[in-house]
Amino acid sequence: MKRTQTLETPAGPEPPLARLAAALGEGGADLSRLLAATERRLFEVAEAHGEVLGHHAVATLGAGGKRLRPMLVFLCAGGQTGEHVVRAGAAVELVHMATLVHDDVVDRASLRRGRPTVFVEGGRQTAIATGDLLFSRAFAELVPTGDTEGVRALSTACSALARGELMQREDAWSDAVTPERYLERCELKTARLFEAACRLGARLGTADTRKAVEALAFFGARIGLAFQLFDDVLDVSGPAERTGKQRGADLLDGTVTLPLILARRRDPALRALDLCEAVTDPAQAGALCDRIALTGALGAAREHALGYVAEAKAALSGAELTAERQAALALVADAVVERYA
Amino acid sequence: MKRTQTLETPAGPEPPLARLAAALGEGGADLSRLLAATERRLFEVAEAHGEVLGHHAVATLGAGGKRLRPMLVFLCAGGQTGEHVVRAGAAVELVHMATLVHDDVVDRASLRRGRPTVFVEGGRQTAIATGDLLFSRAFAELVPTGDTEGVRALSTACSALARGELMQREDAWSDAVTPERYLERCELKTARLFEAACRLGARLGTADTRKAVEALAFFGARIGLAFQLFDDVLDVSGPAERTGKQRGADLLDGTVTLPLILARRRDPALRALDLCEAVTDPAQAGALCDRIALTGALGAAREHALGYVAEAKAALSGAELTAERQAALALVADAVVERYA
Repeated sequence: MKRTQTLETPAGPEPPLARLAAALGEGGADLSRLLAATERRLFEVAEAHGEVLGHHAVATLGAGGKRLRPMLVFLCAGGQTGEHVVRAGAAVELVHMATLVHDDVVDRASLRRGRPTVFVEGGRQTAIATGDLLFSRAFAELVPTGDTEGVRALSTACSALARGELMQREDAWSDAVTPERYLERCELKTARLFEAACRLGARLGTADTRKAVEALAFFGARIGLAFQLFDDVLDVSGPAERTGKQRGADLLDGTVTLPLILARRRDPALRALDLCEAVTDPAQAGALCDRIALTGALGAAREHALGYVAEAKAALSGAELTAERQAALALVADAVVERYA
Repeated sequence: MKRTQTLETPAGPEPPLARLAAALGEGGADLSRLLAATERRLFEVAEAHGEVLGHHAVATLGAGGKRLRPMLVFLCAGGQTGEHVVRAGAAVELVHMATLVHDDVVDRASLRRGRPTVFVEGGRQTAIATGDLLFSRAFAELVPTGDTEGVRALSTACSALARGELMQREDAWSDAVTPERYLERCELKTARLFEAACRLGARLGTADTRKAVEALAFFGARIGLAFQLFDDVLDVSGPAERTGKQRGADLLDGTVTLPLILARRRDPALRALDLCEAVTDPAQAGALCDRIALTGALGAAREHALGYVAEAKAALSGAELTAERQAALALVADAVVERYA
């Protein structure tokens, strides 16, 4: 379960921005403007902190990414389009980027989104410092909003990311990971930042009752979970041309995901297999992916994720948003699924 | 210029708490209570985020440290003793700890304050995640204060730390580092967090004019600079029994500090020396320390630092604090010098 790997790859699908804009009607142009403003803001932040860090931060930003988290901020902000909304969108993206830069140190990764990582270009020290800088700038982005509860939401998400990272290390190559434990890890590593994005947007927006904010936060957490589950299914199912990475990358680095957990319950031979010994090269990883697929575990994992998408969409009725905005958020939820279409 | 290495070592001097308490008169007991409350708060934070991270964070906290930065918060808060002051003290210490944990990944350090580092106990992934967690919790500590400008101050300090870390890497083993460049690095790596501590305290305290807050921020920045300069002098002068580390550690890892820069200007043989080739073991580092000392560069660097201490103390008159609190802060400034007494 590399964090949100799939949407980061060049081969990842575009977010359905045109359809979102259409669903929003007159608000569609605002969404495009907000995304463009966030892009400018992210580059401003990256360039304002010294030449070397600027170089790496700008390169990380320039490598793209679909800005899914800022989009959640904007859609949950219910038509608000001011500076504060842009800042909140930039804040969640900065946190996401920081975790990617630190993840690449952990994984000693040389490529991310088809470009050299900060780690491989600048080394360990530069990459750790770049990640730390991006984290600290994320919090600074929220200052003009004057919303200390927003700071809490972002901080909670950051802490969850760190805990999730650690859990992944603890559970590496383990045959004792239960579905519940796996889902807790997805919650920490992915869902909490999606939740924070929705919460920040809702707090800045027109959904001004506590109930409405919580409904949107729940929506974010649920599509975050679905996002990670589908991502982990894609790691097994491929195809590589579509996902931009070799099948079985999770198996190779010992990350135990739901497809493997479920497959082990269905296939005694898989249950007996020692992941660390049995999978040491891409060919073995590919063969194990095929074996997992044969058990029907991928379909079961997809069903599980679809359940989360349904729960997310159901929560939208309590979000105190216009029908157009509810429809747009439902489209985002569906986009998580459409990565299979 | 290992960041604040000297005060972290078991052999480092105690802050003059008894003298501070005496200077504060009736407020002295408050200071002790605030430091004790901060200690409790730091452990609460460390334990509240999962078993493994808890283990490492608690171990890092338990290894001690003089809590100099929280003390600056308290002294600048001018008699305020509430929850918010404790939180702000905890916040700056959490940032300091986070940087130490990440520094140990960069340096592959196995010991810190005489105990195994998170890096050596838990590995790279655990140490990066632990540092990230400590950073994120620092910002959460400021939430109850409702002070988003305080969030900005902390974020600015964190960004400076990251930039300073990077500058240190850029300048490693370089013979082109000027005193100005060196001082800029000290500013980023050390002074800004001292400044943030004073600023946070002042904002929560009774110094409620902008001028008073800036006076205390200036005080913090100046003693931070002096602190780092003296630390770098100690690396050359030793004695090891006093500093808790071998002389010349900076020379061995290529960190170019003011004593070396000044000595090179005075001694042509030092100017011609290639640090990277000439210093590869502790014996060579020790010999180079002696050579640097012979040039009189240590005295010159000390004089420079004493100038900062004097500037810091002079700024206190604008801080809108009682005479007792001004005297206490002056004692802290002197304590930076007393590491030589």
